[in-house]
Amino acid sequence: MAAEAIRWMMTGKGEPLVPVRFETPSPGQNEVVIEIAGCGVCHTDLGYYYDGVRTNHELPLTLGHEISGHVVDTGSNAMWWIDRAVIVPAVIPCGHCDACRRGKGTICANQKMPGNDIHGGFATHIVVPVQGLCEVDTHRLAAAGIELADLSVIADAVTTPYQAVVQAGISPGDLAIVNGVGGVGGYAAQIAAAFGAVVVAIDVNDDKLAAIGKQCAALTLNARKMNLRDLKMEILGFAKGRGLRESEWVILECSGTRVGQETAFGLLNRGATLCVVGFTMDKVEVRLSNLMAFHARALGNWGCPPELYPQALELVLNGRIKVTSFVEKHPLAEINHVFEAVHAGELKRRAVLVPTH
Amino acid sequence: MAAEAIRWMMTGKGEPLVPVRFETPSPGQNEVVIEIAGCGVCHTDLGYYYDGVRTNHELPLTLGHEISGHVVDTGSNAMWWIDRAVIVPAVIPCGHCDACRRGKGTICANQKMPGNDIHGGFATHIVVPVQGLCEVDTHRLAAAGIELADLSVIADAVTTPYQAVVQAGISPGDLAIVNGVGGVGGYAAQIAAAFGAVVVAIDVNDDKLAAIGKQCAALTLNARKMNLRDLKMEILGFAKGRGLRESEWVILECSGTRVGQETAFGLLNRGATLCVVGFTMDKVEVRLSNLMAFHARALGNWGCPPELYPQALELVLNGRIKVTSFVEKHPLAEINHVFEAVHAGELKRRAVLVPTH
Repeated sequence: MAAEAIRWMMTGKGEPLVPVRFETPSPGQNEVVIEIAGCGVCHTDLGYYYDGVRTNHELPLTLGHEISGHVVDTGSNAMWWIDRAVIVPAVIPCGHCDACRRGKGTICANQKMPGNDIHGGFATHIVVPVQGLCEVDTHRLAAAGIELADLSVIADAVTTPYQAVVQAGISPGDLAIVNGVGGVGGYAAQIAAAFGAVVVAIDVNDDKLAAIGKQCAALTLNARKMNLRDLKMEILGFAKGRGLRESEWVILECSGTRVGQETAFGLLNRGATLCVVGFTMDKVEVRLSNLMAFHARALGNWGCPPELYPQALELVLNGRIKVTSFVEKHPLAEINHVFEAVHAGELKRRAVLVPTH
Repeated sequence: MAAEAIRWMMTGKGEPLVPVRFETPSPGQNEVVIEIAGCGVCHTDLGYYYDGVRTNHELPLTLGHEISGHVVDTGSNAMWWIDRAVIVPAVIPCGHCDACRRGKGTICANQKMPGNDIHGGFATHIVVPVQGLCEVDTHRLAAAGIELADLSVIADAVTTPYQAVVQAGISPGDLAIVNGVGGVGGYAAQIAAAFGAVVVAIDVNDDKLAAIGKQCAALTLNARKMNLRDLKMEILGFAKGRGLRESEWVILECSGTRVGQETAFGLLNRGATLCVVGFTMDKVEVRLSNLMAFHARALGNWGCPPELYPQALELVLNGRIKVTSFVEKHPLAEINHVFEAVHAGELKRRAVLVPTH
């Protein structure tokens, strides 16, 4: 197959993204061609586009790494995948190196991230390695009333906090604090709750707090309206009132801002776990020794190993994680407008760009 | 028994420590009286004494938490311990609370640290809970040519990095970088090597580097003579030359200084583990998001659970960790002079204060 396709290219920092026609190449032995159903717009894309964070692949490049779609062509080793609905992992490990063989695909040195190492998902089609593809059961999907495009957000916004929650070892009765309940943090809160944690949500936006309060958070706090000390005392009082531990909190930092990271670090207590989920180029000023004094830890995770995608998908299909109410779909052709709106903070839900086929 | 005893009291920041006679009280049911063989002088003691770091117990207080000695009296539930040689854990968990029951003694809210929560080891005698005492086989000790006083350093200088190495999961073939090879870091290097790591030592003192180079470090680097970038390149070249991994380094930060912590954080690479072993009140400026970008982690540990003391002691008794060549003994009566010398950086080995009985 050599379908005619369109991808939107970034040519330079802040330059309008431009549509480019291309012929999808014949996939290699271990590759597939995917007709894209949807691709989520992530904070990371904005980092490349507005802040000049460098992509590994030189410009021009198609951004976008939250991809779902249908396999429309395959290489000779990947024929099993033809016509299947899939989610493409945001980080595709090579599957064969020393790190991959030890189950550490997220630190694979040969990994491919669409929209960073290879052309990404703001396109009608994409060619990707077959490694790590996550199949979607379309019958269950239809029964759940979810569209395939909605599932694109699983590739980062859902699985990245999923991996964080798994790494932190959240279990029933834990107190989990999610700092920043936007596109990623909203899922972090739902996942932590699905793992049995009582969830405290912190944000600076009352609308987002109200939304997550309805969904799963037992306590919501606006960080604009109280200082760190008061936040900590409020959560401590809540923990006591609920009979939860007054230490060993799990803090999921999802704001990806300097202030947010400093707040999250300041919430550390004995035996606490800080998960650094959000990203910012900014440095922070923290007393690192508090990790020692509290016997605490700070864990980072770069995406999520593909092996965990089916578990995260299952939570979506069985309704423990809601995606549709946190997503809004826009035509791919409106990408420049949507980027601006996301950057300006005008959207309350995660934008998913949907191509017209 | 009500032996007459002496303990050296801290009455205020920088005030001369003063000897005070006291009668050792009858031990409670679950307590023992220990005739102290030696007590190590730790960076933490100097923090209380020179920098005004607050002790949990109000002043006047006897400092010192690295204690070895003989049990000379016991409560009714602790009679098994009479006459035994022991190491007192630097952090004594209560053994009964929720955290202790889950094996997390270092975050026990009722823990007692000698020289912080209760009177410490710069004394002829001390009364401590029996919980967590580590017995020493005096026959093996004599056969190894080690004195009981030397073993005092196990209670912090050895077991704290021991716990860090266990937490980091160091295993054969790992590359471990020890930043600061003084009183604690020297043991960190030996323990990492005993667990099979190839050890790179970083310090600002050539004498300490030479000593650890003879002992166990395969590469020694003086951080005064090269910037962070060069340090990283040098270690990378070394790793390549040795056929070791170019990622997943374990960095044991033992300097307990702002500059040292920033250097250690700067050495993070993919899948790396930073162990925060040294303590400083200073804040540091770091890009916390690198934990996310590198899928790395920073682990702190407050001392070491008593359950691990026998393993650490075993490494000393079987010669894998040398203590005698890293220790110098001084009479307890010279405590004020020794504190000054340690504070001025005049001693190359860890000072252990030995009372005259």
